[in-house]
Amino acid sequence: MHRFALLARGAAARPGTARWSSAAEASAVHISEKTSREKILTLESMNPLVKALEYAVRGPIVLKAGEIEKELRKGIKKPFTEVIKANIGDAHAMGQRPITFLRQVVALCTYPNLLDSPSFPEDAKKRARRILQGCGGNSLGSYTASQGINCIREDVASYIERRDGGVPADPDNIYLTTGASDGITSILKILVSGGGKSRTGVMIPIPQYPLYSAAISDLDAIQVNYYLNEEKCWALDVNELRRALNEAKSYCNPKVLCIINPGNPTGQVQTRKCIEDVIHFAWEEKLFLLADEVYQDNVYSEGCQFHSFKKILYEMGPEYYNNVEIASFHSTSKGYMGECGYRGGYMEVINLHPEIKGQLVKLLSVRLCPPVSGQAAMDVVVNPPVPGEESYSQFIKEKESVLNNLAQKAKITEELLNKIPGVHCNPLQGAMYAFPQIFIPSKAIEEAKAHKMAPDMLYCMKLLEETGICAVPGSGFGQREGSYHFRITILPPLEKLKILLEKVKDFHIKFLEKYA
Amino acid sequence: MHRFALLARGAAARPGTARWSSAAEASAVHISEKTSREKILTLESMNPLVKALEYAVRGPIVLKAGEIEKELRKGIKKPFTEVIKANIGDAHAMGQRPITFLRQVVALCTYPNLLDSPSFPEDAKKRARRILQGCGGNSLGSYTASQGINCIREDVASYIERRDGGVPADPDNIYLTTGASDGITSILKILVSGGGKSRTGVMIPIPQYPLYSAAISDLDAIQVNYYLNEEKCWALDVNELRRALNEAKSYCNPKVLCIINPGNPTGQVQTRKCIEDVIHFAWEEKLFLLADEVYQDNVYSEGCQFHSFKKILYEMGPEYYNNVEIASFHSTSKGYMGECGYRGGYMEVINLHPEIKGQLVKLLSVRLCPPVSGQAAMDVVVNPPVPGEESYSQFIKEKESVLNNLAQKAKITEELLNKIPGVHCNPLQGAMYAFPQIFIPSKAIEEAKAHKMAPDMLYCMKLLEETGICAVPGSGFGQREGSYHFRITILPPLEKLKILLEKVKDFHIKFLEKYA
Repeated sequence: MHRFALLARGAAARPGTARWSSAAEASAVHISEKTSREKILTLESMNPLVKALEYAVRGPIVLKAGEIEKELRKGIKKPFTEVIKANIGDAHAMGQRPITFLRQVVALCTYPNLLDSPSFPEDAKKRARRILQGCGGNSLGSYTASQGINCIREDVASYIERRDGGVPADPDNIYLTTGASDGITSILKILVSGGGKSRTGVMIPIPQYPLYSAAISDLDAIQVNYYLNEEKCWALDVNELRRALNEAKSYCNPKVLCIINPGNPTGQVQTRKCIEDVIHFAWEEKLFLLADEVYQDNVYSEGCQFHSFKKILYEMGPEYYNNVEIASFHSTSKGYMGECGYRGGYMEVINLHPEIKGQLVKLLSVRLCPPVSGQAAMDVVVNPPVPGEESYSQFIKEKESVLNNLAQKAKITEELLNKIPGVHCNPLQGAMYAFPQIFIPSKAIEEAKAHKMAPDMLYCMKLLEETGICAVPGSGFGQREGSYHFRITILPPLEKLKILLEKVKDFHIKFLEKYA
Repeated sequence: MHRFALLARGAAARPGTARWSSAAEASAVHISEKTSREKILTLESMNPLVKALEYAVRGPIVLKAGEIEKELRKGIKKPFTEVIKANIGDAHAMGQRPITFLRQVVALCTYPNLLDSPSFPEDAKKRARRILQGCGGNSLGSYTASQGINCIREDVASYIERRDGGVPADPDNIYLTTGASDGITSILKILVSGGGKSRTGVMIPIPQYPLYSAAISDLDAIQVNYYLNEEKCWALDVNELRRALNEAKSYCNPKVLCIINPGNPTGQVQTRKCIEDVIHFAWEEKLFLLADEVYQDNVYSEGCQFHSFKKILYEMGPEYYNNVEIASFHSTSKGYMGECGYRGGYMEVINLHPEIKGQLVKLLSVRLCPPVSGQAAMDVVVNPPVPGEESYSQFIKEKESVLNNLAQKAKITEELLNKIPGVHCNPLQGAMYAFPQIFIPSKAIEEAKAHKMAPDMLYCMKLLEETGICAVPGSGFGQREGSYHFRITILPPLEKLKILLEKVKDFHIKFLEKYA
C-alpha cells in the first residue's frame, strides 16, 4: 500500500493548478451541490449488448474462485487447501509440460542468438530460420500480413492436406488468428446483417461453448438453438436441426450453422454419417457452416475417429464441394500441446466469395495481425518433427504421453462419475471435459429460485465453497429445460483427478441428503 | 502447385459418396439450372457495418504494394528494385534491432531450461522467474486472468507512478491488452449505446489514426470530427472542440473525446496548457476521455515534453481527479522497442464505475486473455534494467541509440520535405511519422475525380508505381476539405530515408510538371 501514500490527494494548492480548482469549484456549484458527480459510463448508459453478454467459463463462479484463493492466501481456514480450477481447458495450468520442440522453436525465433547454440537441435533451428525469413526484418517484433505469415499459411495448408488424405488446401484460404475465438467472432461479424425478422439467425448446439452465445449477443444476431441428444451420447440429429431451423424462420433469417466437433462441453465425436447429413442439410437449406474443430487431436474412445468437415465435403462430390461455404477453426490451445497463452490459431475458408475474402482481410487488418509468437507456435503444431529428424523420437514420446494420459483420464472420469448416485455421464469420446447430468432435489431447486440463481449455479457454488473445486454450471452452456449439469475438465494430473472425483462424490451425496 | 494436383476434383464416383452426389444433383435441378450456386455470404448479404469500414494504413495502397512486390519477385522490371513500406510504424521490419534485454527475458520465459544457461544475465533471469511465477503452472502456455497477469499489472502501476512523479496508480485499474488497439476498441464498445439522435458520438481528431474511424463505424457509433490546426503545428484548440461538440449535439449524443498525444499521423506533442484545457472541457461537458499515449517515449523536439493526461488530471486537483473518467493506452509496439508483433499493451482506467469494471472484465474474458508473451514483453518495457543491474549499460545504450536515431531522422525528414516546392511539413515533434501537406495541381485533381479516386490516393498510387515508396494518402486519416497530405514513417535507416526523401522530391517535381 506504500505506493498509494506517496502523494497526498489534494494537489489543488500547487501553483499553476489552483486556478483550475477554483474554476472547477465555481462551476461545480452551478451544476450540482454534490462533490462526487454522476459517472458518464454506468450500467444504465453502457452498451446494452455488452451488458446482456454472458460468458460462463469465466463467469461468477470463477470470480468467486478468485476471491476464495485470495482468502486462502490470507490464511483464512477453509475445508480445503487449494482451489482446483477445473472450469477451463487450461492444460499447462494443470501441470502439463510444454512440448519441448515447440518451445525450442519459439525461443530460437525470440532470441536468434540461440541459433548459434549447440544445445538446440538442428531441426528446431531449421524451422526457426524459416519462420524468421517470413518475418519483416527477420524479427518476431514486426507486424505480419493481416492474414498471417505466408510460409506458415503454406505449412497449415500442407498439414490439412496430410490430415485429410490429400484433399487439396490452398494457403490463400488460410487465415492465422488470435486463438480460434478470434476467427469465429470475425467470420460471424461478417455474416450478420438485416433487421427485425430478417436479422441473421445463427444455429448453435445446446449445450454449446459460450463463446458462441456471447458473440451472437454482442453482434445483436439471433441465437437459434438445436439440442444435442443426451440419450444418444450427445449425438446431433438432422431432424432436430430441421425443427430448429423451421421454427426460427418465423422470427429471423437463419443462415449460419455452427458445429463443434469433437463437442465442447459434451465430448461427443461425430460419425462420418452424421457429418454427411449435416453437410447435406446445410447445402439444402443454404446455410453457411462453421466447423469448430479445435479438439481434432483429442479423440479417445475406441471406434471413434475425427473426420474433418472439409474432407467429408470433398468426398461428397463436386455439387457439395463447389458450393457449400464453410469456415473451420483450429488452435494451439488444445490437442496435445495445450498452448493457450500463445493465442495461436487458424481458420480455413471454403467457397468464400472472392470479394468477401477481401472484406475479411480488411476486417482483420483493423487489429493489425495475430500475435507473431502465436503464429510461430501454430507453425510447429502443423509442421512437427518427422521420422528421421533429430527431435522426432522425443516429440512423439511427449505427444503420445499427453494423449494417452488424457485418454486414461477420460475413461476414469466417466467411470467414477457414473458411480455417484444421481449422476449420469456419457462416454467422453473426445475433447477435455466431462459434462455429467446431475439430479438436483426439488428443495435445492426452490432454494436456488429464492436466490434468483440457476439450480446448477447453486450446486456449483456450494461445490466450490465446500471442496475448492471450480466447475461450470450447465446453465452456462445451455441444457434441456429441467435437466442440470456441470462441466469439469479432465486436465488435472491423474491422482489429483481421482481425488477431485471422490470429492465430487462425497459432496453430491451430502447435497442429496441435505435437500432430501 | 503440386499440392493442388494430388487429387482430382470429381470424387463423386467413390463408393459411399455417390448417393450424395445424385441426391444433390436431383435436388439441384429443382432449385436452379446453374451448376454453381449463388453464395450465401456476398457483398450484398454481408454485415453493412463491416462493408463500410475503412482502414487506410492497410488499405488499397498496401494491397497494391503487395502486388508490386510479387511482380518484382517474378522478375518483372520496374523503375525500382524494392518496395519501401513506409505506410506503417513497423520498426523491426525497417531494420531496427530488438532490445536485447527484452528478448532475453521473453526467451527465458519461453524455454525455462535457459534459466540454467550461463549466457543469460541474472537480471533477465530474475524478471523471467517473476513472470513465470505469475503464470499458471509457471508456463507462458497457460491462460492468464482476462485482465492480465497480476505481477505485470503491478509493474505497470509502478511504471506509471515513476513516469508521473509519484501520482498513485492502482494495479486494479490496469488491464493488459492485445496491443493498444484492443484496449481502445474494448472501451469504445462498452461506451456506445442509444439509437437515432441519442446514439453515442465519439469525438476524434482530424487527421486521426484510422483505428478510431474503423472502430466507430464497426460499432455503428457517430464519428464527430474536430480539426487540428495545421497552421499552428497541428495544435488542438478547445474552441474547435466546442464547435464540433455543439454541432454534434443536434444529431447525436457526444460522450467520448479521443486524444492522440503525441499525435498520429501529425506528430505534434501537446503542451501542458493544452492538456489542462482539454481536461477542463471534458469535465465541463461530461465527456469520457480516451488518451492514446502509445508514443509517450517518442518525443524529439527541443522544448517538447510528454505529459500524461493522468498526471495533469491529478495536478488539477480533486474536483477533476475524482470525477473525470479517462482510459489511457500504451503499447509495446512503438517507443524505442518497436515490438509490434508481440501485440502487447495496457490500458489504465481512472474513475471507472466499479460495476463497469466488472462489465469490462466480462467483455475481455470472451477473448480469454491477451497473448502471454506480449504480456511478458510489456513487463520488460515497464520494468527495464536499473542502474547497478548487469544489463543496465547495454540496455540504455540500445534505447538511446534508437531514440537519438529517430530524433535525427525526424529533423532531417522535416528539412528535406520542406525543400520540395509545393510541400509543407510541420516539425515532427514526436511519434514516427511525417504528414506533409502537398500541393496537387487541378489537372491531377480532375484526373483523380475521373477515376473516382481521392486526389491524394492518385498521388500515392503514382508515387508507389514510380518509386516503390508506399505512403498512405491523407484522405485515409482525414484532412481539411481541399488540402492534401500523405503519411510516411521515419523508420527506414538514415541513409535509406535520405534516398527515399530524394525520390519523393524528384517524383513530386515531375508530378507538378506533368499536371501543370
